[in-house]
Order: sequence, then structure tokens, then C-alpha cells
Amino acid sequence: MCGALVSADGRILERREAALDRDNVAAQVSQIATALRDASRAGVAALGVGVPGLVNPETGRIIISSDLPSVVRGDIQNELARASGLAVSIENDANAAAYGEYIAGAGSGSRNLFFVTIGAGIGGALILNGKLWYGASGFAGEFGHITIDPEGNECTCGNTGCLETVASAPNIVRRTHDRLYRDGTSSLSRLAMNKDFTASDIAREALGGDDFALLMIERTGRYIGTAVATVINLLSVERIVLGGGVMEAGDLILNPIIREAGRRSFQPCFEATQIVAASLGSDAVSIGAAMLARDAVAQPAG
Amino acid sequence: MCGALVSADGRILERREAALDRDNVAAQVSQIATALRDASRAGVAALGVGVPGLVNPETGRIIISSDLPSVVRGDIQNELARASGLAVSIENDANAAAYGEYIAGAGSGSRNLFFVTIGAGIGGALILNGKLWYGASGFAGEFGHITIDPEGNECTCGNTGCLETVASAPNIVRRTHDRLYRDGTSSLSRLAMNKDFTASDIAREALGGDDFALLMIERTGRYIGTAVATVINLLSVERIVLGGGVMEAGDLILNPIIREAGRRSFQPCFEATQIVAASLGSDAVSIGAAMLARDAVAQPAG
Repeated sequence: MCGALVSADGRILERREAALDRDNVAAQVSQIATALRDASRAGVAALGVGVPGLVNPETGRIIISSDLPSVVRGDIQNELARASGLAVSIENDANAAAYGEYIAGAGSGSRNLFFVTIGAGIGGALILNGKLWYGASGFAGEFGHITIDPEGNECTCGNTGCLETVASAPNIVRRTHDRLYRDGTSSLSRLAMNKDFTASDIAREALGGDDFALLMIERTGRYIGTAVATVINLLSVERIVLGGGVMEAGDLILNPIIREAGRRSFQPCFEATQIVAASLGSDAVSIGAAMLARDAVAQPAG
Repeated sequence: MCGALVSADGRILERREAALDRDNVAAQVSQIATALRDASRAGVAALGVGVPGLVNPETGRIIISSDLPSVVRGDIQNELARASGLAVSIENDANAAAYGEYIAGAGSGSRNLFFVTIGAGIGGALILNGKLWYGASGFAGEFGHITIDPEGNECTCGNTGCLETVASAPNIVRRTHDRLYRDGTSSLSRLAMNKDFTASDIAREALGGDDFALLMIERTGRYIGTAVATVINLLSVERIVLGGGVMEAGDLILNPIIREAGRRSFQPCFEATQIVAASLGSDAVSIGAAMLARDAVAQPAG
């Protein structure tokens, strides 16, 4: 778990990290928040939390969190408010990261952006006219479950051919593994030296010049670019910001994403969209959660 | 060409139709507008025009119109304003139809909707918080060019596997024709009695109980539903309104669209979205263009 003290303009002043205690998340958040506040000479106005899960934007309740099921029980927002004495905002982590990049990262200067995070899962979030767009359900921005191949693999969500079935970190590993061993191409890549390679290993080997690893990264970029083209066609946002572990491959993945998006989107829309890598890394969530908490204190929701 | 006198609350008071004179569109619009105004005892506040083409939302200039190339030359907006003495708004026809359905049709009561029109081509338009969303390019809502099959047919836009390559009226006819004759199934359908059948004929035979025609309509609905699911996942709009000639098949196409959208979208988003047929038919463009002109007069753009 990471905590950070963030200035009103979105700079991180101090950090705290701790191994996650899955069963006592609320107590741990409260502890880190208190420690950060006690260490600061400045006043702390609010506490923002980014969680991997669905958050009801109206009540702040966490509805589903497959990674942290314990936080779904109870009312974490009230619990934290009582423990810390601060106003508390709880937000989905992809939404928080999007807002962080928008305020202080690769999204700054734009008013409309789509944020994508590609790691163990694939998340998305949409900012329109400077505000997170939640939609009728509260959960707009489900980029990972866009169908990019109607006859593709089954997804955990029940659909077939979601982007996530080919482009999340575990699925990049699966595809690479399949191809290395199924096609007998294992002698062609340094990846075969370690059967337990990760998506980071694939990115690292690609950056180091391994052609097979590069091929897998490029193919992944093309899948992502297909979904990016759809965002461009439908929304024509000014900027698309891509973050998450899979973007560690840098331009090796960003360039095929941009090429495929260009090939598959309506040209006037494509030309009006900048496609860029996120710049804040994992700080995006802390900064964004803090900025959303700041905004909620400045302008309380009705 | 259709013209209509529309009340301030979006009802059609009177209509005029004329065979389109492709080379003199502006003169014809002006003539119809004048005739409608002269026939009315009420005052006319503004003139709204819906055109099949890309319109720059800032200047009102028509940039591209493959159906009516003559309107791209010159400044139709100023020309019409001078000829009619009215304030003139020019809008893309899908945008106008979306606004018409939003104000007075199947979209009324919603604040956020996506409108789709499926006919000779496939268009889309997005209304967010009660306003048309143009995006950075001015041309958001390009529903017809969403990739639904990355390895699919080549599209006129340069991409492969756009929705339009399988679900526009001419492509429904192409697929049906291919399948009737390639698979030797022509004895199974009444469609084989007329080699020059249209998409309307397919819809009519399906409604009349022809199983083969029904199969083609249902398959088309599944293609459209795949793209509808993407709109739901990304935007979580309250309502999706489907219009255009291909929707003549009614529930026979609407039901498979809804089923496929449900199968392929994130459930909480799907449950928050109503998917309905448009209710204004071709009047949607007239009503929407008039309402946009009304709004522009009430609140002139900066």
C-alpha cells in the first residue's frame, strides 16, 4: 500500500509504503494517513483513497473488489472519516490515476482525455470537460472489456474476445509462452531460458534486442491500438494517456499502438488526438485520489 | 429533400418535399424555407439544415459530403442567411437526427444518449448532459467505423472489419446474396425470387416468416450489438437510440442487438442502459436541425 502527502497543486511532498494487510485495509489507510499528517507542518485538508474495485460515485461505497474483498464489507469512507477526522473521498484506482495524469501528468493541458492502464488487468477512465465521466451506471470507461475479436478467447467477464484476453500482463505471458513452445521457436528467444518469465521480462528482452520478444510486444500494441481506435472514433478526445506496467516497453509498444489506431480510426478524429504514455507511474493514483479529495472539499457534491 | 416548419417544442407543423436538385442545393433549401415561412401565420425564428456530410461545428462550413459534393463549395450558411434573412444552423444529419430524437422522440427524458442510424451508411452521434458532443475533431460518434472484426472485410475508409462492412443496407444485401447463392440455399428463401432484392425486402420477408431472411437480420443484429456493447462499456450512456432504414425490421433486429450487447458488455453498465428504436423516422433530422437552430438563436455560440 502506498500513501502520499500531496500539495494542493498535485506534487507529492512525502510518501509512506507498507506491505498490504488485506484484512485490515481501512485501519492501515488510517494509520498511514495519520503518520503523514503528523510528519507535516502543513495542514491536511482531506484524505483521498484509490482502490482496485468498483466504487459507487454517489455514496462512496465500494461495491466490488476482486483484489481486496475485505473492503467491500462495511462503509470504509465513514470508518476512515471517523478515524482520521478528515473528509474522505474513495475512488476507483483507474479513475484516480486518470485524474492524477490529468492534473499533474501526461494529461495536463487537455480538457478531454481517455486514460488506460494496462497491467494485471486493463482499466480505463474518461475525463470530459475536466471532470471524470461516470455515466449512468457510475462505471463508464470499461476499456478492457471492449470486444476486439468477436470469436476470440473467453474472458472472465463472460464475453469472448475482450481486449483483456490478449493484452493484459498475464495474457501477454500466456500468448508468448504458447507461441514459444507450440511453434518450436524457443531457440529463437532468450525468454526460453526462464520458463517463469513475466510481462516485464518480455518488455526487458524486447528492449534488449530480442526479436521474438519484440514481435510479441508489437502484436500486443496492435491489439491495444484497435481498442484505442474505437475510443477515438466514438469520443474524439484530445488526448489518450496510456499507463500501467505493460507500458514499460516504452516506444516499442507505444508506436504500434499509434500505428494501429491510425489505421483503424476515422482520420480527422485520429489527427485531433494525441496518444501518449503516462508520466506519473504509480504516483498517479495517489495524486489523483488526493486531487479528487481536494475538489470534493472545495465543492461538496449535492 | 424534405423541409418542415417546426414548433419551438419540436412538433412538425407543416412539410414540403421536393426531388433533390444536387447542383442547386442551397437555392432549393432557400426556396422551401421561404415557401414554409410564407405559408405560416407564426413567426419563423431560424433555419436549421441537416446535411449528409462533415460539418465544422465552429464555422458551420460543410467540409466533406460524398453524397452532395456540390454543397462543399462555398459558404452555404451565409448564402442561406442572405437569401432567407434568417439565422441559419447547419448540422450533420446524424447529429441533427440525434438531437431530434433527444428532444421529441425516443431519447426524450434522458440526458445522455448515443444515437445510431443504420441505412446506406452507418452514422452515430453522442449527446452528453443534453448537448451534442463533438470532440476535439468536431466529428465524434463515428459508430460505423468501429472495428468489430480485425480481420474482416476492407472498408471504404481504409480500415478492415468496420461495422459498416457488414451491417449497412448494401452490405446486408451483399451478405445475403453471397449466402443464398454460394451455399446453394436459394431454394430455402423467397428472396431468391428476385435477384435485385434490397435490405427492405430482406426485412419484409423476415417479418413475413422467411427463416433465411430472419437469419440474416439476426446475424446483422449481432454485429450491431457488438458495437453497441462497446458504446455501453466506454460511455455508460442512459439510452441508445437506433434508427435508419435497417431498423424497419423492428424487434426482429432490435432483440438480437440487445442480446448481443448484453452478452458483450460489462453488466452494471448494460443494466443502466436502455436500448430502444428511434421513433421519429426521417422527421428526426428536420426536428433536430430546427431545434439546434432554435438553441443557436437563443444562445449564440461565442
